[in-house]
Amino acid sequence: MTPKIDRYLQAEQPATPCLVLDLDRVEENFTAMRTAFPDAHIYYAVKANPAVPVLRRLVALGSSFDAASWEEIALCLQAGAPPARISFGNTIKKAASIRRAHEAGIGLFVFDCAPELEKIAAHAPGAKVFCRLQVGTAGSVFPLSRKFGTGMDMAAELMVRARDLGLEPYGLSFHVGSQQVQAEAHEAAIGQVAMLFDELDRAGIKLRMINLGGGFPTRYGEEIPAVSAFAGGIDRALRFHFGNAQPQVFLEPGRYMVGDAGLVSTEVVLVSQRLKTDELRWVYLDIGRFGGLAETEGEATRYMIRTPYNGAEDGPAVVAGPTCDSMDILYEKQPYWLPLALKAGDRVEILAAGAYVTTYASTGFNGFQPLAEHYI
Amino acid sequence: MTPKIDRYLQAEQPATPCLVLDLDRVEENFTAMRTAFPDAHIYYAVKANPAVPVLRRLVALGSSFDAASWEEIALCLQAGAPPARISFGNTIKKAASIRRAHEAGIGLFVFDCAPELEKIAAHAPGAKVFCRLQVGTAGSVFPLSRKFGTGMDMAAELMVRARDLGLEPYGLSFHVGSQQVQAEAHEAAIGQVAMLFDELDRAGIKLRMINLGGGFPTRYGEEIPAVSAFAGGIDRALRFHFGNAQPQVFLEPGRYMVGDAGLVSTEVVLVSQRLKTDELRWVYLDIGRFGGLAETEGEATRYMIRTPYNGAEDGPAVVAGPTCDSMDILYEKQPYWLPLALKAGDRVEILAAGAYVTTYASTGFNGFQPLAEHYI
Repeated sequence: MTPKIDRYLQAEQPATPCLVLDLDRVEENFTAMRTAFPDAHIYYAVKANPAVPVLRRLVALGSSFDAASWEEIALCLQAGAPPARISFGNTIKKAASIRRAHEAGIGLFVFDCAPELEKIAAHAPGAKVFCRLQVGTAGSVFPLSRKFGTGMDMAAELMVRARDLGLEPYGLSFHVGSQQVQAEAHEAAIGQVAMLFDELDRAGIKLRMINLGGGFPTRYGEEIPAVSAFAGGIDRALRFHFGNAQPQVFLEPGRYMVGDAGLVSTEVVLVSQRLKTDELRWVYLDIGRFGGLAETEGEATRYMIRTPYNGAEDGPAVVAGPTCDSMDILYEKQPYWLPLALKAGDRVEILAAGAYVTTYASTGFNGFQPLAEHYI
Repeated sequence: MTPKIDRYLQAEQPATPCLVLDLDRVEENFTAMRTAFPDAHIYYAVKANPAVPVLRRLVALGSSFDAASWEEIALCLQAGAPPARISFGNTIKKAASIRRAHEAGIGLFVFDCAPELEKIAAHAPGAKVFCRLQVGTAGSVFPLSRKFGTGMDMAAELMVRARDLGLEPYGLSFHVGSQQVQAEAHEAAIGQVAMLFDELDRAGIKLRMINLGGGFPTRYGEEIPAVSAFAGGIDRALRFHFGNAQPQVFLEPGRYMVGDAGLVSTEVVLVSQRLKTDELRWVYLDIGRFGGLAETEGEATRYMIRTPYNGAEDGPAVVAGPTCDSMDILYEKQPYWLPLALKAGDRVEILAAGAYVTTYASTGFNGFQPLAEHYI
């Protein structure tokens, strides 16, 4: 929530549902991270919010970009990012996408297994590659499961293989899980990566980069550590494990950069109590899980909701979306305390919704149009 | 899977991922339901697949339409459906949407609580209304939870209220849950509805319609009852409970109508084994939970997957989508048996994917474009 967004909502009363995002807050977040990590290269995770105004602002600030697909690479290029500042950061890539990226001048690719390495060698010969490791994600709201990354033993073999395939073994990456609130999570992984640097050095491969991934949190409700709180421990761990041979450090913030810069303005469609035996209110909004709020799956993300009745008497309510889909419920297991005065037609705001919302929106589930977006 | 789809895939090799749907199969499904329920009014649940070619074919066959939003109503009108054959079937409606529907000639609205009834009375004066009841959904793959419907006691009061508000209390509806495979599920609910008909008759309100909702299953893998198997029990229950005063019967099939008419053609992007300690293969497709296969959430829908190696030696694999999202996994708790020969670049088909796929697709998560659609 920023004063600029407040003024915009007052003045424009944009049709709901819509995202309103303050680009100056994105800039503040970028600057705070650059201040906390003065030597790091910041690769914005485009998937968090790929809107062109966001990309343009970050290009102007000197950010680099972590792209999940050829389509995201093309967006970055259109927004003015030089190819040298774009990393193809998805371990799962079609051969055709690798080829297109290579032709567009992208020179840095991630991988986590031999078949992907072979694809990169065939379609982006000579490229720099970094290997993604599987590390612990305890402390994260969205742990990354086993979908990405390889083990330490396999990683060393794969880096040797990369060299033999004519690629440039460039570095190692890991990801501690999204919305990671334990500042110590990165430190243990840095130690593991340093051991792998040493092992590969003995094999004649000099790695140059450590990619700490993303996961830096945004503030949904509970207090979270500031980005500077992560920086101290990470810096100490890097100095301890790498001494005078400091690698380049890459960061891939997504949620951190745009989460608290935006909100979703929504309208209450219906408030009902439908069973005499059940006093629980149901509050239906004009956006739900399939309109963009996908991260409420399993009630994982608990957004702050601002209503016109702040401070008024409140009570528990189930919060649900507007579709005929029974899965389209935001908060039911843990009902949400909302003002008793809340009624159909009221505008409410879902705060800190700048990340991972617009692109999750379905193309038209139940006929509802994708979320409108306003970048101010 | 139909021969026409096979021929199309062979001849056209359309870019993946895409839906290919055989409109003749939709017609066969409609005809089978009309044959099984000769006296019922069939309201196709547009949300299952709102593609214009599907709607046009059903308009030509004389189908009616169950719309979830003003936008779906507009689609039906564009496809040539007369307003008298469209029901506004979402219990959660904005006032503006009700007004637009009323102005377009839509005369039938569902509701399940007093505030919604008041909205309808204000913005669609004189309309026919039906009240949705909450009934048991045991036996359904997608039970409808508590999001929709009111209790029997409240329903009677609400129907009286509807009359007093100048609306026409027209009928009662319920829904036994989507992909309902127990043919008996409807029968118990019919008895409850009949009691409510009697009770309202004593209050001077003569209801005319019973809406049995949807839920009729499509064949994903295991055998399911044919639509005719549902018809016998439903017909017996209607005769037992309503005798000579048979109400109009409405059906709202969605999944049943289009599910087995379509398939998703997809490409294997990567097959990997990434941990020496874990022999499980991971198979990544170019479509996942956010590209349209949303119903694999919780591994609820287990689609049949056809590969070019049918009959070859197979083994377990985790099946996942192409995005950087750790939730984008289709089958992991119960790995999927797939041929060992399967490799990146292979085309595979996800069968019986004609319902609830295209509109769930995100607008561009991770930069991936929405699912292409081919209606043949």
